[in-house]
Amino acid sequence: MDAVILNPGPTLKYLSGLNFHLMERPVVLFVTADQDPVLVLPELERPKVDLFPYKVQAISYGENPSEWDDAFRKAAQALGLDGKRIGVEPRQLRLLEYSYVKSGAPEADFPDASNVLSELRLKKDQAEVEAMRKAVKIAQDALEAVIPQIQIGMTEHELSSELVMQLLKHGSESEIPFAPIVSAGPNSANPHASPTERKLQAGDLLVVDWGAAYDGYISDLTRTFAVGEVDEEYKKIHQIVQDANAAGRAVAKPGIPCADVDKAARDVIEKAGYGKYFTHRTGLGIGMEGHE
Amino acid sequence: MDAVILNPGPTLKYLSGLNFHLMERPVVLFVTADQDPVLVLPELERPKVDLFPYKVQAISYGENPSEWDDAFRKAAQALGLDGKRIGVEPRQLRLLEYSYVKSGAPEADFPDASNVLSELRLKKDQAEVEAMRKAVKIAQDALEAVIPQIQIGMTEHELSSELVMQLLKHGSESEIPFAPIVSAGPNSANPHASPTERKLQAGDLLVVDWGAAYDGYISDLTRTFAVGEVDEEYKKIHQIVQDANAAGRAVAKPGIPCADVDKAARDVIEKAGYGKYFTHRTGLGIGMEGHE
Repeated sequence: MDAVILNPGPTLKYLSGLNFHLMERPVVLFVTADQDPVLVLPELERPKVDLFPYKVQAISYGENPSEWDDAFRKAAQALGLDGKRIGVEPRQLRLLEYSYVKSGAPEADFPDASNVLSELRLKKDQAEVEAMRKAVKIAQDALEAVIPQIQIGMTEHELSSELVMQLLKHGSESEIPFAPIVSAGPNSANPHASPTERKLQAGDLLVVDWGAAYDGYISDLTRTFAVGEVDEEYKKIHQIVQDANAAGRAVAKPGIPCADVDKAARDVIEKAGYGKYFTHRTGLGIGMEGHE
Repeated sequence: MDAVILNPGPTLKYLSGLNFHLMERPVVLFVTADQDPVLVLPELERPKVDLFPYKVQAISYGENPSEWDDAFRKAAQALGLDGKRIGVEPRQLRLLEYSYVKSGAPEADFPDASNVLSELRLKKDQAEVEAMRKAVKIAQDALEAVIPQIQIGMTEHELSSELVMQLLKHGSESEIPFAPIVSAGPNSANPHASPTERKLQAGDLLVVDWGAAYDGYISDLTRTFAVGEVDEEYKKIHQIVQDANAAGRAVAKPGIPCADVDKAARDVIEKAGYGKYFTHRTGLGIGMEGHE
């Protein structure tokens, strides 16, 4: 690739140390191998240019969208990018930024640069690992402060709000990585449920999926609780999941593909007859994002 | 247009009542004028299909990305969309979803549907206005609870965390609309600053830009405070801004273009000689988003 383009999101933060808002005005950093990066941004964000830890060439535009094409054309011209290969992050880049860059470099190709960019972020240095450990500790401590307050009749919403407050009290950044999933009873079967006004009932399974942010790094934990006495089948499932977890952990070590960990855990669940309900992969990478 | 496509975001929520996560797996609702909408989603999100308030045809895919193209091709075929005009929201749709839809309908055009879709959301009904008023009240009450705690030596981060806790205590949804901007001293000149570890000092101007969420609708407020005694020029600027605000409010009424309100406010600031520092437009729409 001849360049990569980054809009506000984790990779831009990783490569600049700065937070930019993802908003209606396009912000794009153009990075090439051998020239100073070019940053296109609205005039009102211009004070952020001085916070960059290296030299960037800033091209700012005013509030009238009719000026924006011109700013992107200048950026592409400054770096000689038309007709070149400009790498993109499809999971982060919106049509908004893509269309402006394309209008500035109409003959360029836009290959997927996700793998190149995520490799930079994959292997964490000591400071990153420490920030992640701290984010885990904040999340654990917050949950432990919430547990004594959990009682039958409390809504998922109430529990979720209390958990966020405890995350902040225990030192999470105020921009938590994701709104906690707190789901009980039937909702707990939906891995990506949003908290509802349903009240906790005896016999529920209660899923809490939450995380904290510290120094730009996040934690992402999930725990399932039994509310009072639960069905015998739930106890059986709990044991299967615990065995699957142990099997996965036993296989995991440096150099082993993630797929092997998934298989070890999945085999236990499939053998127990619950394979068709296990609709997602085992585990995920973390770092600056919840699913990295 | 023959269809619109929506990925997780405010318009999808507006048209479904449901929260979907914006994640590494593409989720797209295809809406046409005369057929049941088609929803492409991962198998693990399938439980959400039953929560839709109307009939949707769900096409789900497994965890292997090699299956995903096929799901999108089926969706485009089911609705006969290849070669048709499929409206998009460039500020919301990522290259991820766009590329999959395009692979399923390679001859389609993708016009900008933002104006059509935002017009649906522009005019609020009574329940929406009430939710917005409630979101404003929560935000105001939260700030009032924070004000007595503000003191010299407190960091922007600390103030921001306390404000988020108060938002939740006062009833905001735990997914607040945006992380509060709390910026003092030099940082306060940056309209989109992120909170830092800088401590409040006597003589600072302190900007707080924050909001609450209630029933899916948000508030977005900004207040500037003087910390102790401030420079005479700040007092002069404060009076200019207050006059500009009054001038804008005097012009605003039903049927008046927003541009007239902007002009009335801007004229005051320009006449006072500060026009070149007023780098953004006056005000913004709100509703489900902070900048609607």
